[in-house]
Amino acid sequence: MKNFTSVSDVEDLQEIIKKALQIKENPLSETEKGKGKTIGLVFLNSSLRTRLSSQIAAQNLGLNVLTLNAAQEAWNLEFADGAVMNGDTVEHIKDAIEVLNQYCGIIAVRCFAGMKSKEDDINENILSQFEKYAKVPVISLESATRHPLQSLADCITITENWNKEQKPKVVLTWAPHIKPIAQAVGNSFAEWMQQMDVDFVITNPEGYDLDKNFTKDTPVIHDQDEALKDADFVYVKNWSSFDEYAAMPEVKESWMLTNEKLANTNEAKVMHCLPVRRNVELSDEVMDGKNSIIYQQAKNRIFSAQAVFSEILDEITEK
Amino acid sequence: MKNFTSVSDVEDLQEIIKKALQIKENPLSETEKGKGKTIGLVFLNSSLRTRLSSQIAAQNLGLNVLTLNAAQEAWNLEFADGAVMNGDTVEHIKDAIEVLNQYCGIIAVRCFAGMKSKEDDINENILSQFEKYAKVPVISLESATRHPLQSLADCITITENWNKEQKPKVVLTWAPHIKPIAQAVGNSFAEWMQQMDVDFVITNPEGYDLDKNFTKDTPVIHDQDEALKDADFVYVKNWSSFDEYAAMPEVKESWMLTNEKLANTNEAKVMHCLPVRRNVELSDEVMDGKNSIIYQQAKNRIFSAQAVFSEILDEITEK
Amino acid sequence: MKNFTSVSDVEDLQEIIKKALQIKENPLSETEKGKGKTIGLVFLNSSLRTRLSSQIAAQNLGLNVLTLNAAQEAWNLEFADGAVMNGDTVEHIKDAIEVLNQYCGIIAVRCFAGMKSKEDDINENILSQFEKYAKVPVISLESATRHPLQSLADCITITENWNKEQKPKVVLTWAPHIKPIAQAVGNSFAEWMQQMDVDFVITNPEGYDLDKNFTKDTPVIHDQDEALKDADFVYVKNWSSFDEYAAMPEVKESWMLTNEKLANTNEAKVMHCLPVRRNVELSDEVMDGKNSIIYQQAKNRIFSAQAVFSEILDEITEK
Repeated sequence: MKNFTSVSDVEDLQEIIKKALQIKENPLSETEKGKGKTIGLVFLNSSLRTRLSSQIAAQNLGLNVLTLNAAQEAWNLEFADGAVMNGDTVEHIKDAIEVLNQYCGIIAVRCFAGMKSKEDDINENILSQFEKYAKVPVISLESATRHPLQSLADCITITENWNKEQKPKVVLTWAPHIKPIAQAVGNSFAEWMQQMDVDFVITNPEGYDLDKNFTKDTPVIHDQDEALKDADFVYVKNWSSFDEYAAMPEVKESWMLTNEKLANTNEAKVMHCLPVRRNVELSDEVMDGKNSIIYQQAKNRIFSAQAVFSEILDEITEK
Repeated sequence: MKNFTSVSDVEDLQEIIKKALQIKENPLSETEKGKGKTIGLVFLNSSLRTRLSSQIAAQNLGLNVLTLNAAQEAWNLEFADGAVMNGDTVEHIKDAIEVLNQYCGIIAVRCFAGMKSKEDDINENILSQFEKYAKVPVISLESATRHPLQSLADCITITENWNKEQKPKVVLTWAPHIKPIAQAVGNSFAEWMQQMDVDFVITNPEGYDLDKNFTKDTPVIHDQDEALKDADFVYVKNWSSFDEYAAMPEVKESWMLTNEKLANTNEAKVMHCLPVRRNVELSDEVMDGKNSIIYQQAKNRIFSAQAVFSEILDEITEK
Repeated sequence: MKNFTSVSDVEDLQEIIKKALQIKENPLSETEKGKGKTIGLVFLNSSLRTRLSSQIAAQNLGLNVLTLNAAQEAWNLEFADGAVMNGDTVEHIKDAIEVLNQYCGIIAVRCFAGMKSKEDDINENILSQFEKYAKVPVISLESATRHPLQSLADCITITENWNKEQKPKVVLTWAPHIKPIAQAVGNSFAEWMQQMDVDFVITNPEGYDLDKNFTKDTPVIHDQDEALKDADFVYVKNWSSFDEYAAMPEVKESWMLTNEKLANTNEAKVMHCLPVRRNVELSDEVMDGKNSIIYQQAKNRIFSAQAVFSEILDEITEK
């Protein structure tokens, strides 16, 4: 694996899930693999799970870890090519990346959607610069349009919770929120589910359809009750409008996931990437109920990251 | 030791002081003990000594260390049970704790008193959630009402500085400050001194008596000169009013510790937990004088933390 | 080496450059040297290269690393001797330093010029307190008037890029900026170049002459074209006025380094300490052009730091 920014970087999804589950059995089986190598974890945005799970994964592999809160600890970054830097920005992203090239064997970066320009976000105006200028492997810790380490953890979690022969029905359901949130987790989950052996549907209100480039042929159902029927897994997540970019068109029905709605499913396991707004996106009773596998999902972030870092290290070592 | 949030978690105080002093002699005697285990240091507030001494202690034990400045690096936390999270808070503390359970073998947390609601503070509205939801040992890095790692370091320091047969007289004296400060250090010191073989008295102005639940039968003297007489140790610390919670009732006498006041003691050693407001809480001449053992106290924070982490690791390993 | 705050701490410049280049060949040749020792990296200001390269260098030597963003993570510091601390400052720098003495075998600190009081800055009002109160070796990560780890990296880089018998001509050229910047990098580079076997000249507009205490007999030329003629190395850097302290006297000519100006040189290699304001200090074409050795310079920050830390460790171990 050369980079890890989307599902298309994964050669064999079942293989990497298997590897992650082996790592979960024995997280310290490769403590020498990263010795003498350095991973730089660059955060342009807040992070709890990604920050901690990436550090643990790297430490388990013997990697040196550099964590950089870019905005607070370093310099205000310029992203525009050719900019005359006579304003607030102090360092161009391409210079920061070139320096990271000199210091790190692997660069991992979190760069959320700005939610201001649809074009900037769909073009991944920040991650694309890492992809362009990095001379070492680049790992996305969530970018404007995708959150692949989360999606891999989601695949691991579904695999752990399904041992029947028939395919599970997996429903990604939109949930309410109080402010415009990026589509990255939804997009990414959709892409990865298309590679899994599952029946996958998406449900969201009118006006909230995700970008077709990610959902492809996935059925999109605007009636939540209908979509949830017989679901085996329900993935809860808010996102703002893609069409009317970053807007929040009014939604009249109640979309918060409750036990009442769950009753309609096949005792579905409930998933969420966290952080979650309790009693807005889903009810306390669901979050704390027996169907939630949300904390297991959070734990699997470690093994998702460790499997990816390990494969990336194979690539570096081969060179 | 299962948790460490107050003196009542210590089975044998003399034993742990002895252990800490052995660690001080040979800090690297247990470098394999924590291998493959992770301690999460969660800071909801500023920290210098606690932050650095905890990191050193953990590194000396071979632990992996995750440091999280929760507010700045992760998400704004919700503390109210059952809250409908449609406001500024992004993640519920119980979800954050459950995730830490998945990632860490030990959780250590700093959560100061909010100084707004007496009830919230005396009920330890944050620490109590860690105690309730953590499935791994919890260590207090100072909470609303106690600072036990500081108090243990204080006990170590007093032990190092006393080799006479009779009990030393230890005086906790209130000191002036410019804004309302929590009672945690004072409360905690009072609790621990009651477990030490010392004559312990507290002196503070009228209106500044600490919570009886911590001071118990400790004599409280409102005349500083009288209290300081023949003292062997003087612990200087400000706190705001407990009765009129977080208020600062006017104090007419001068309570700043000076050499003149020290003359009244039995060449008392002077202690303070730091940070200290020079020439407000105590004078430069005291701080920089030969009686101060304040930096020694700061150093002992390492061995206090390391003794506690080591005992907690015994517990984990036994399981 | 006891401390490292200026070129005068270096006994033999050629020797330490040679050592750094050996480290560059084999960065992991001394991984046991720092074992059981701790370096505290204290940042009072932003940092990218210094932060990361120092961490890598320390890790390569097996040192424990404590990184402290003093203002954000710890307490607001007081710098005035004898201050009555009844204002915004919570901890006196000398107490913070004494605590670092207890915790660290080496203290490294970044403390930029305040750019408000010329006297405070030229007297190094912060670094001088570290030099006064530290009981362990002190390393400057850039102070008010100098940036010695940068300058050593600069010397390493020039050495790597010059294999002719005659001395290279090295030109330090002032560059435009939009706000007042300290003279530290310029001062420091001037001091170190005087110890190198080079022909060194400085060029800057009238009103921007650096402090004579640093530049000594170095020729200062106010005509950039004249200065650049036949240059082998051009070091680009802005600084504000020293005479009219921190002012920015109007400059009528264009001082931004461009390819056109470079044509006048002996195919000079271009250097800059970063971060750089593109198209203000130098043009994109220069930054991204074949003459730039700026990223190599950034990489050499690791080996500059590692050579210094290694020499400091020799000193500690000898004691």
